[in-house]
Amino acid sequence: MDSEFKVTPWEVTGDIDYDLLQEKFGTSPIDAALVARLSKYGEVHPMIKRGIFYSHRDMNIILDEYDKGNRFMLYTGRGPSGNTHLGHMMPWMFNKWIQDTFDVPMYFQMTDDEKFLFKDMTLHETRNMAYENALDFIALGFNPEKTKIILNTKNIDKLYPIALKVAKKVTFSTAKAVFGFDNSTNLGQIFFTTMQSAPAFLASEEAGKPVPVLIPCGIDQDPHFRVTRDVAPGLGYPKPSLVCCKMFPGLSGADKMSSSDENATIYTTDSPKAVKKKVGRAFTGGCVTVEEQRANGGKPEICAVFKYNYYMFEKDDRKLDEMAEKCRNGEILCGECKMCLTEKINTFLEEHQAKREDAKEVIDSMTFDDFKW
Amino acid sequence: MDSEFKVTPWEVTGDIDYDLLQEKFGTSPIDAALVARLSKYGEVHPMIKRGIFYSHRDMNIILDEYDKGNRFMLYTGRGPSGNTHLGHMMPWMFNKWIQDTFDVPMYFQMTDDEKFLFKDMTLHETRNMAYENALDFIALGFNPEKTKIILNTKNIDKLYPIALKVAKKVTFSTAKAVFGFDNSTNLGQIFFTTMQSAPAFLASEEAGKPVPVLIPCGIDQDPHFRVTRDVAPGLGYPKPSLVCCKMFPGLSGADKMSSSDENATIYTTDSPKAVKKKVGRAFTGGCVTVEEQRANGGKPEICAVFKYNYYMFEKDDRKLDEMAEKCRNGEILCGECKMCLTEKINTFLEEHQAKREDAKEVIDSMTFDDFKW
Repeated sequence: MDSEFKVTPWEVTGDIDYDLLQEKFGTSPIDAALVARLSKYGEVHPMIKRGIFYSHRDMNIILDEYDKGNRFMLYTGRGPSGNTHLGHMMPWMFNKWIQDTFDVPMYFQMTDDEKFLFKDMTLHETRNMAYENALDFIALGFNPEKTKIILNTKNIDKLYPIALKVAKKVTFSTAKAVFGFDNSTNLGQIFFTTMQSAPAFLASEEAGKPVPVLIPCGIDQDPHFRVTRDVAPGLGYPKPSLVCCKMFPGLSGADKMSSSDENATIYTTDSPKAVKKKVGRAFTGGCVTVEEQRANGGKPEICAVFKYNYYMFEKDDRKLDEMAEKCRNGEILCGECKMCLTEKINTFLEEHQAKREDAKEVIDSMTFDDFKW
Repeated sequence: MDSEFKVTPWEVTGDIDYDLLQEKFGTSPIDAALVARLSKYGEVHPMIKRGIFYSHRDMNIILDEYDKGNRFMLYTGRGPSGNTHLGHMMPWMFNKWIQDTFDVPMYFQMTDDEKFLFKDMTLHETRNMAYENALDFIALGFNPEKTKIILNTKNIDKLYPIALKVAKKVTFSTAKAVFGFDNSTNLGQIFFTTMQSAPAFLASEEAGKPVPVLIPCGIDQDPHFRVTRDVAPGLGYPKPSLVCCKMFPGLSGADKMSSSDENATIYTTDSPKAVKKKVGRAFTGGCVTVEEQRANGGKPEICAVFKYNYYMFEKDDRKLDEMAEKCRNGEILCGECKMCLTEKINTFLEEHQAKREDAKEVIDSMTFDDFKW
């Protein structure tokens, strides 16, 4: 294993040591006490129980406020740089669980400006991609009455004044330390973090009073919100709370599913045939020959197929344990597991793709400030 | 004379050597050939003849285009950090002359975001100040059919996508070199120059084709537009042309009238009494005693009162020469000159203040994209 790893909002490389990352970032583990507290509001989500959402900042404050009758605002987002894949959907599914459990309103920010600034894409392209990504988000069933989609370039009139307030409080020195910027960083990239802070304060601005905010997101986004939290008190806003997840693994065995490796990435618009092919090529914990595997068993802990079940496709803990057990004992072969996962993914995608079509009917009613795409 | 001077969009200190500044910035002198060419379009403005508007970038290209029937867009602006003083009005008067002479449309940008970022002011304060400053601008008689006032935070939806395109092309390294930024510069200050570039490309964006742009402004603003011009070709926009003026002097004898020295600054809203008091205290080129001055004469070249006539209040070259001559010969004393200037300023301000009141009736019809203050 490579002990070097790097996690920023724009780059995830190496084998991530999530405990070390938590320590570096200064977030807190989701411990047994917090899980117990969460269980009071309903069945705890598997992603919490399995340590996928594993770290947080001030989650207790959000629950304290909620218990006092102060409903929080949920905020997450997406950088629309390409088609939605399962890795993007994972934290959204968790957000959906939070919304349902606590019956709270939500902002979903699409940073078309960010992806224009960081990628070789036009604003037209990032905006179109935002539309496509938003369909996937909506398809997960967020409450259309309580969920507003923010598109940065379309909602800039509301976001910019807040971004300016953040910008005035953050020096280049801080941005360098937090994001690793240097002299070659462009002016938009340097400014951008303020735009990601803005929705965290938007609910307070709109309500004219402090509104608690909870941000469920990938741990790679924590640097942005560290800045957000640092400036909040000086601007008279509450510090947003965070709950952070690990990166969704790639089918190749990589720590993070990435659009740059298309064959190891399942997109929400993939055909059943494409899914079959991709899962068929997945990295597993199996042996080279059937005989060896029957004799020695496989290693689910390094198997991408097992991880997919663990992260998303097998919600039943008992069945998951059974799967691992059978693998270790050589009772089940990789081919069977792949076939089984393919079926699960295709069943999910078939339903999702239908809901994704339906989303086109409601997307216009779910935009913040009623912007038109 | 102090040989050290500094001119940036946010700081002007020391005794400015305008020839050296022109050389440093890389702008071109307005030479006899250009003055002759300008005279074909009408009586050349005194600020050109007297070398107040003294430097330019690609002014000939603007005239070439105009001669071909390609009307240019005029663009200038104001950072609304305080009440309007005569130093702000000077380049606006020149802009008015350009608009009248060439019958061209105009953008007037008010950078309320900039002043929020660079000064200890709230956005509410800079926006209110923008309104006050705009009244002075309108009072100068710009064509209400052809002149649109941009307020950055109100027109951000149109400006931001252009600013992003600029931002993607400019590195922190460039911003450091051009503006002298360092690690303590805040993220908004770093991004801001892109917002000042945006109106230079706005007419092309709105028209869907390249529109030539002329920017008459103080030479201290040239660094912004150097960046604008550098990125223009890569974005498919024409490089804006510039015509730059020297700083309007302070009554204290300083090279630049500054709001930080209120007693040496004439505001457009000053009462006749206040003007009399301020001009009365002006730095002159006179001698200590009447006897000495009668005998040795004064020095109009260092006299703030003379400069006020030169820059703005005595348009007749013959009368100006006479004034200098009489001063040098000891025929006229500082008190007389001050009284005479006070009268000129108060006559101007009385009329201006009436027009400023009238401006309140039309200001809403002159906003870009019909924003409401």
